[in-house]
Amino acid sequence: MSVNSFGRMLRFTTWGESHGPALGAVVDGCPPQIALSEADIQPFLDARRPGTSRFTTQRREPDEVRILSGVFEGQTTGTPISLMIENTDQRSKDYSEIAKSYRPGHADYAYDAKYGLRDYRGGGRSSARETAARVAAGAVARKVIPGVAIRAWVSEMGGDAIDPANFDASIIGDNPFFCPDPVAVERWSAKLDIARKAGSSLGAVVTCEATGVPAGWGAPIYGKLDADLAAAMMGINAVKGIEIGDGFEAARLSGEQNADPMHPDADGVSFDANHAGGIAGGISTGQPVRLRVAFKPTSSIMVPVPTVKKTGDGGYESGEIVTKGRHDPCVGLRGVPVVEAMMALVLADHFLLHRGQCG
Amino acid sequence: MSVNSFGRMLRFTTWGESHGPALGAVVDGCPPQIALSEADIQPFLDARRPGTSRFTTQRREPDEVRILSGVFEGQTTGTPISLMIENTDQRSKDYSEIAKSYRPGHADYAYDAKYGLRDYRGGGRSSARETAARVAAGAVARKVIPGVAIRAWVSEMGGDAIDPANFDASIIGDNPFFCPDPVAVERWSAKLDIARKAGSSLGAVVTCEATGVPAGWGAPIYGKLDADLAAAMMGINAVKGIEIGDGFEAARLSGEQNADPMHPDADGVSFDANHAGGIAGGISTGQPVRLRVAFKPTSSIMVPVPTVKKTGDGGYESGEIVTKGRHDPCVGLRGVPVVEAMMALVLADHFLLHRGQCG
Amino acid sequence: MSVNSFGRMLRFTTWGESHGPALGAVVDGCPPQIALSEADIQPFLDARRPGTSRFTTQRREPDEVRILSGVFEGQTTGTPISLMIENTDQRSKDYSEIAKSYRPGHADYAYDAKYGLRDYRGGGRSSARETAARVAAGAVARKVIPGVAIRAWVSEMGGDAIDPANFDASIIGDNPFFCPDPVAVERWSAKLDIARKAGSSLGAVVTCEATGVPAGWGAPIYGKLDADLAAAMMGINAVKGIEIGDGFEAARLSGEQNADPMHPDADGVSFDANHAGGIAGGISTGQPVRLRVAFKPTSSIMVPVPTVKKTGDGGYESGEIVTKGRHDPCVGLRGVPVVEAMMALVLADHFLLHRGQCG
Amino acid sequence: MSVNSFGRMLRFTTWGESHGPALGAVVDGCPPQIALSEADIQPFLDARRPGTSRFTTQRREPDEVRILSGVFEGQTTGTPISLMIENTDQRSKDYSEIAKSYRPGHADYAYDAKYGLRDYRGGGRSSARETAARVAAGAVARKVIPGVAIRAWVSEMGGDAIDPANFDASIIGDNPFFCPDPVAVERWSAKLDIARKAGSSLGAVVTCEATGVPAGWGAPIYGKLDADLAAAMMGINAVKGIEIGDGFEAARLSGEQNADPMHPDADGVSFDANHAGGIAGGISTGQPVRLRVAFKPTSSIMVPVPTVKKTGDGGYESGEIVTKGRHDPCVGLRGVPVVEAMMALVLADHFLLHRGQCG
Repeated sequence: MSVNSFGRMLRFTTWGESHGPALGAVVDGCPPQIALSEADIQPFLDARRPGTSRFTTQRREPDEVRILSGVFEGQTTGTPISLMIENTDQRSKDYSEIAKSYRPGHADYAYDAKYGLRDYRGGGRSSARETAARVAAGAVARKVIPGVAIRAWVSEMGGDAIDPANFDASIIGDNPFFCPDPVAVERWSAKLDIARKAGSSLGAVVTCEATGVPAGWGAPIYGKLDADLAAAMMGINAVKGIEIGDGFEAARLSGEQNADPMHPDADGVSFDANHAGGIAGGISTGQPVRLRVAFKPTSSIMVPVPTVKKTGDGGYESGEIVTKGRHDPCVGLRGVPVVEAMMALVLADHFLLHRGQCG
Repeated sequence: MSVNSFGRMLRFTTWGESHGPALGAVVDGCPPQIALSEADIQPFLDARRPGTSRFTTQRREPDEVRILSGVFEGQTTGTPISLMIENTDQRSKDYSEIAKSYRPGHADYAYDAKYGLRDYRGGGRSSARETAARVAAGAVARKVIPGVAIRAWVSEMGGDAIDPANFDASIIGDNPFFCPDPVAVERWSAKLDIARKAGSSLGAVVTCEATGVPAGWGAPIYGKLDADLAAAMMGINAVKGIEIGDGFEAARLSGEQNADPMHPDADGVSFDANHAGGIAGGISTGQPVRLRVAFKPTSSIMVPVPTVKKTGDGGYESGEIVTKGRHDPCVGLRGVPVVEAMMALVLADHFLLHRGQCG
Repeated sequence: MSVNSFGRMLRFTTWGESHGPALGAVVDGCPPQIALSEADIQPFLDARRPGTSRFTTQRREPDEVRILSGVFEGQTTGTPISLMIENTDQRSKDYSEIAKSYRPGHADYAYDAKYGLRDYRGGGRSSARETAARVAAGAVARKVIPGVAIRAWVSEMGGDAIDPANFDASIIGDNPFFCPDPVAVERWSAKLDIARKAGSSLGAVVTCEATGVPAGWGAPIYGKLDADLAAAMMGINAVKGIEIGDGFEAARLSGEQNADPMHPDADGVSFDANHAGGIAGGISTGQPVRLRVAFKPTSSIMVPVPTVKKTGDGGYESGEIVTKGRHDPCVGLRGVPVVEAMMALVLADHFLLHRGQCG
Repeated sequence: MSVNSFGRMLRFTTWGESHGPALGAVVDGCPPQIALSEADIQPFLDARRPGTSRFTTQRREPDEVRILSGVFEGQTTGTPISLMIENTDQRSKDYSEIAKSYRPGHADYAYDAKYGLRDYRGGGRSSARETAARVAAGAVARKVIPGVAIRAWVSEMGGDAIDPANFDASIIGDNPFFCPDPVAVERWSAKLDIARKAGSSLGAVVTCEATGVPAGWGAPIYGKLDADLAAAMMGINAVKGIEIGDGFEAARLSGEQNADPMHPDADGVSFDANHAGGIAGGISTGQPVRLRVAFKPTSSIMVPVPTVKKTGDGGYESGEIVTKGRHDPCVGLRGVPVVEAMMALVLADHFLLHRGQCG
């Protein structure tokens, strides 16, 4: 089964582990005659790249992408686009401790239970490093839907939300928090420094919005645009929740509060509100597609946590673990480019699917 | 594309509209030699069946399922199981009004934008009536994983949550709210009567838990158990949010608060907490799989809402709509058997996938 | 796994057994706004229908198709089209003999080996009766590609080939052999009567041609038009070989003999020959798509054949079997409408796929 | 759509062009804990490697494979196995002629018709060079089914068949024709020298047999083992026909001639003959799986062939083409390792699928 693939028409497959020689994505189904080069992809990888501030892991990776196939004379050919990123900073270290112990909150134990073995170097395949491949694939997807603008930001960190009144999109890319509220940047900076120095970590909520999506993308009943987005987002490392439009808040409203009254407008139809987040019946309505994603705090912390260790005879014994090494104190921050990439991939996929079925 | 199919190994396809002659599901990939008859399926359809209290739509449907293939001498044969439910109460009425107007919050406008036409009788394919087919398929899935117990309930209605201290699983099936808190039943009954009589509607949150799931089901990276559950739940009509384990609450915790300390136990490994909802790295941990699903309030309300109507010349004009007819005042209530069915389908699918890959 | 589904964009799933209450197909991905009714489908089922001459099985089935979903006011809606055909002539008989013996050449033994049980009534799911569902689905596919004309015929029966000089397309539908050569009809009639009366059976070769397929349908590398056609044809009951264009004959030619010289023409490009059968690199060239399919002789014969029988203790003992009952003396004849249906399904699928990827 | 992927459970995706920097395969779904290293793969690539005799293209490629992911400490981990082969001999030359002309029999025109552009360097994605990736993936598949032995050979070249009486499996790997008949080797050597020197080419038939396949692999109705094999083989460059067991010959037999009488034996059941090629109803019978594949003669020949050329204004004009450069005079010879690889991939896939569904 292609459990390492995602998408229907624009389908990508990723491969690679945290400490292997490289990682990559193969993007299949991209339309031909689209201008594409590494320069279209690199900026998104740079936004996700580690080691750029004290608030991200100190692993140094240039994350330089190479296009190995599918592009000829600067244009996509309709054949698979192979993207590769070499790992360069797989720090050599002693893994004997982590090889036997399971880090609570990590996939260590689950992988062992499933496969009977695991690549314990940096989490192997379960490492968030794999998301670099998604970001690269997402950059290709953006080129497929040039009329769609996708923007994500951190709207809450450690339970501290931005003030919508302060929203300034122009600063999102200029601070290490992908935060659109300049006041919150100050608070979060102090907050995350405290957590970081205490060896702790914080959770975050990322909001993402896509504008320019016409009405009609998506597909009932098991190819719903919102269902695909839910799968795409829940599949990102550390994500535990996803909301479309008002999400859980909608469950607390009455029918008339949650109504999205409609009016004729110049382009056809507009909505007074967008409680639905731009999706009804699994199909886009022409309003902005809006969603929120919850990231749990990074599980790798310096605070000791009880755990189990494998004994020589195949059994388990009690232990305690302190996850040293290089980690993000708030993994949600680096989730922003990944959320955007997955949004782009799902939308581009549905654009092609819609064009195929409905002409 | 099989946008009307779901699942990898245990894959089902549904068909049918609200007011067509029948609806059904074809379940493919069910293992052979499982005892199966209509009697295994009917109780779940009965739990979902409309018209059983004043708190659900008054449409009367017996929802009797027939098995048309895939079972021989009382056992599954490994070939596709075709399940059919006839529609009997497609009330004949005048659809001229609804044929031209879009009900805000419904899929009417989106379907028209996508397909250029729509079956406006009772919402056609976008009607929650389709979920009867999922519930039937889910009953088959349960037989594939007999060691797993799945139970869902309404944990919040109209913003009013149950008190965990009052939790009594035995009453869930005995009240029209699928509510495990006898005190909440009283409050909700009054609350929903008020909404119902006002022509309004309420949202709800459904919690679902599966016990008996061994560690090792699920699959990185795009076949994650939680990602599949997210897609499964978000694809249910009226759902706008999904949380695994602590969900959005986890985003507000610190790393040490969110830690799931592990200990050796008789069966292998146990966890002090289950913040993760039984899933790490997309793979089950052996703890109960726990999730929460947000249902928006029913969009069909008697309160007038501004909307658009199609004019004869292909344009739009302003209008107002009052959705008369038979509707659920809280569609989340009837979502309980559907959430359970989708949980069963996802788990059975991953059981077979795991057996295939890992033996 | 959807092993009972076929197609990518226009994907259909079939269900049903020879002696169950009904069989059917669910066609997913059909574009909206196509005029469709039972009258578009029934003629193709009638062409395949048994019991119409002494040269086909005497089972009497009206094979009346019902459309249960996906069509509204005479037009497809873009949602799944459920097609059902009821079985009416499942003759009640004593199956005790066949239940224990394996018919050589049939799937009996293989099904038992795979599933540990089998529906022995008329072959269950392995019966060619399932192809009625394909023929119904194929009729829908034809509506998706109205510019394509598909025509198949029997070009060889029992080793006796038609004379191309006698080819008369107008008589194909008027004789029980789907034979375009009036002289061969006479010979075959005598030949098959002899085989039939001897309790024997004959093989056949079916040729199929699709005209009006533009250049550009199909897709490298594992979605090749010819590879999909090969799978489609080899999946038909009793088929053992498939050739595209000159097929095995091409393996005996030199490069210059097999060359398809190209010339400019009014429409763009034409080919002097069409050795390639209208497909190069897995993509259509604009020439007629042409293929040949080999059907083995019907395995159910009145001539006794050594076989094995299951003993009470789970072992096997030697036996002999004479397959009485109603059978086609040349199953290839009835393969003609099935070959056409599969051709239509593959082409329609690739039309939609091409439109999706290449616009 | 994953048109560059193949398989259900063991699914591989290939990427790369003839003259790009590299090509590769990502193999997904491989079970964990299988010993695997480059040394398991390289011998199969070496067998397919060009430039090893005067009877293959003179392009010199070491075809050294690298495993970039999915293997840890010498064992598969259950995560995707990324295989990469660098292109080293993309001879720099002037492509101006071929960029405008279509080579008859090649995919040039079809690619242009589909995508509106093409990578004309060595055929781009349509080059048989892509099959190196399949051969690498096939080597992984062999490790999944260690009990199955797969062997292919050329049974006919230029219409000249081997004599079964001379069959000597031990010499297959020792002559450039993959020929098991020492007498035929002499004849073919002379024959191909003549064709080669004349700038012509020859077709061939490859036979492949897999022993050790237990009864029960495969799946009705659209996942049939023979249908999957047909797609796998027809998808190989230059293949125009595929037969299972007796293939087209079966269409010329009577029912009793084609019967496969069965007998009890020590292992369960054996067959007197194996006309069916080890597959009945799409499921393996426990007999050797046997098939034949027809390769057309190489289309690239030095003999001039009329063709069309693109003119500056988007139109076409008549021309003539002589395909110079490095080519195989009989591409079927090098198809042998590819046929074996595809056989291994299909069988391994069905082994896992069967284990998943039937335990």
